[in-house]
Amino acid sequence: MATFTHHHHGALLKTPLSGRARIPGSKSSPGPFRVRMSLQETGPSLAVVGVTGAVGQEFLSVIQDRDFPFRSIKMLASKRSAGQSLNFLGQNYVVEELTRDSFDDVDIALFSAGGSISKEFGPLAVERGTIVVDNSSAFRMQEGVPLVVPEVNPEAMEGIKVGRGKGALIANPNCSTIICLMAATPLHRHSKVVRMVVSTYQAASGAGAAAMRELEQQTHEVLEGKPPTCKIFQRQYAFNLFSHNSAVLPNGYNEEEMKLVKETRKYGLVSLVVFLSVRNDTDVKVTATCIRVPVMRAHAESINLQFENPLHEDTARDILKKAPGLVIIDDRTSNNFPTPLEVSNQDDVAVGRIRRDVSQEGNYGLDIFVCGDQIRKGAALNAVQIAEMLL
Amino acid sequence: MATFTHHHHGALLKTPLSGRARIPGSKSSPGPFRVRMSLQETGPSLAVVGVTGAVGQEFLSVIQDRDFPFRSIKMLASKRSAGQSLNFLGQNYVVEELTRDSFDDVDIALFSAGGSISKEFGPLAVERGTIVVDNSSAFRMQEGVPLVVPEVNPEAMEGIKVGRGKGALIANPNCSTIICLMAATPLHRHSKVVRMVVSTYQAASGAGAAAMRELEQQTHEVLEGKPPTCKIFQRQYAFNLFSHNSAVLPNGYNEEEMKLVKETRKYGLVSLVVFLSVRNDTDVKVTATCIRVPVMRAHAESINLQFENPLHEDTARDILKKAPGLVIIDDRTSNNFPTPLEVSNQDDVAVGRIRRDVSQEGNYGLDIFVCGDQIRKGAALNAVQIAEMLL
Repeated sequence: MATFTHHHHGALLKTPLSGRARIPGSKSSPGPFRVRMSLQETGPSLAVVGVTGAVGQEFLSVIQDRDFPFRSIKMLASKRSAGQSLNFLGQNYVVEELTRDSFDDVDIALFSAGGSISKEFGPLAVERGTIVVDNSSAFRMQEGVPLVVPEVNPEAMEGIKVGRGKGALIANPNCSTIICLMAATPLHRHSKVVRMVVSTYQAASGAGAAAMRELEQQTHEVLEGKPPTCKIFQRQYAFNLFSHNSAVLPNGYNEEEMKLVKETRKYGLVSLVVFLSVRNDTDVKVTATCIRVPVMRAHAESINLQFENPLHEDTARDILKKAPGLVIIDDRTSNNFPTPLEVSNQDDVAVGRIRRDVSQEGNYGLDIFVCGDQIRKGAALNAVQIAEMLL
Repeated sequence: MATFTHHHHGALLKTPLSGRARIPGSKSSPGPFRVRMSLQETGPSLAVVGVTGAVGQEFLSVIQDRDFPFRSIKMLASKRSAGQSLNFLGQNYVVEELTRDSFDDVDIALFSAGGSISKEFGPLAVERGTIVVDNSSAFRMQEGVPLVVPEVNPEAMEGIKVGRGKGALIANPNCSTIICLMAATPLHRHSKVVRMVVSTYQAASGAGAAAMRELEQQTHEVLEGKPPTCKIFQRQYAFNLFSHNSAVLPNGYNEEEMKLVKETRKYGLVSLVVFLSVRNDTDVKVTATCIRVPVMRAHAESINLQFENPLHEDTARDILKKAPGLVIIDDRTSNNFPTPLEVSNQDDVAVGRIRRDVSQEGNYGLDIFVCGDQIRKGAALNAVQIAEMLL
């Protein structure tokens, strides 16, 4: 565990978890008895760009949890953070300033330092032969850059491997898109999704560790009857919710919503359709309303699906049961369905409220509700899973 | 102001409002210089059933704010609460136990004490000649009982008036339905809504004052690293959200969602359609996903609309601007849209995020986002507005 985390974050960042149930069948968090080497002899050389951020820290946690092999790891951040020390797997590291020369002899670089850093340093790293897995939106819609969720469209990155001496860019989709498609894609493979209406319930973490601290601080203040301190967001967040803080475009959608619309179309929801020679399901119609709610680190999404052919809810449940990286929490009798809290710090996305949409004829529609850890599957885990496929 | 409120509620129930903007054009909260008589000579005799609850208290606030005329008012509650004293408009009242004889000489009774109380005492009151405005779900779907939002379908209660010596039942719709239809109906009048997909963000208040106190207490506990006390809800509410706590039906929808589906159909979204001799738009297709979020007293709803005929978003904005009881907050440049906090304690429902749905052809679809005070327009205000129409 990267102890760095604990120095920099508020009390809640790692511990809003009291009372949460363990997800049945969850694949994360290895048992306490697993032993691992503090430094491997084999494996690629890694670099983590933006290592002091919320996602950067989670990269380290995921690398540890999944025993991701590496022979070396560079901790990179801005000049401001450079020089800080960081303990990872029993080793001390000094955070280095990101420069043009940071990527000599780096096989895989995991980027999460914002779009402008990615735009500047991503191509430089590729030139040096590094495979960049980028968590920003900088390259997602760029022609030729695979936009990958390993469970959804692994074939998109075919041919990109460590050891072939060639750099490459691979983009990690937006967190809301990943979490949505983890459930929508398996269904789409069975019966094509023609239209999808998504409303999100997005956590503070999507705006970074400072936003999580702001939510915590504001909540203290409001409970004490003090005016809330608004720095990251322009309005009170504690005991409130608001339209996503990204810029609103001329069509009235904000950037977060258009990511869901466009990214879903780019990789066409589904990989297996490739076998039917349909490269991208660019005709999948998506609308989204993205809302920030006072939750720490996991997103929820209410998803309404319209299918081309009937899909019975029992069939849908069977499909989702078998889908990788997904757990079903769908107990109508006890009113037990996914919540952000119980997926927090978990790898799997949870899906529930699976039901026939009463507003559509027959079995042409379904409503589902998903929750996924925004920092983990929504960002760091997905990137490390991509890196695993590079080996 | 009913001072009772302050004795019984947690600190946040009336004051989660720091930092909120005043809604432009809002009609609530009269100025401080308005004088009113503490007891009127004229007006109907009133009874408030469930006066010690969150909605019961709000009935009193609304009666005061709107100068609702009455010649007497009975404060009714369960045996447990009977005997408590209560100050209203400078007069002291003793809370009386609700009995079969409570309604002698009562013209209008405002009920908000749960469905079973309404079922038992509502018909008894009607027999005595009382007009009952019921906030529970007991009679909403009953044939012959008008289900009324005054801005939406006032004609449904035509012929029911105080002074004709006849009792009657009038049902107040569910809070989520009212808040949704305040914005959907004006649009539907212009271009028929054929299908509506709703995802809600529902406040604690919908589950009563005790739920609001539980959210406040849990938030304290979680911030202090203690396990949260779960009494009203079965899981942690602070920094979390969950599927609405109402029972889940065999079709997978919970009762709250089916209220939105069925109530919307019962009064057919719209009143003006009556002139076209279509009594109820029972063919309006609705699906809903209802989620409880950690917000105190105002609901938000993400609403996707499909129209029979094209409706341009500019036309929609003009229609909503003119709609009674509605304010538009829709500033894309400053990312200023409705939030639960700024509609808290306000009469008007706020609507924003008005935009053409990119997932539908041409102008056949719109996405909107609404927020409304659950206790006020979602319950007490709507009931008092109904009562005003009885005079």
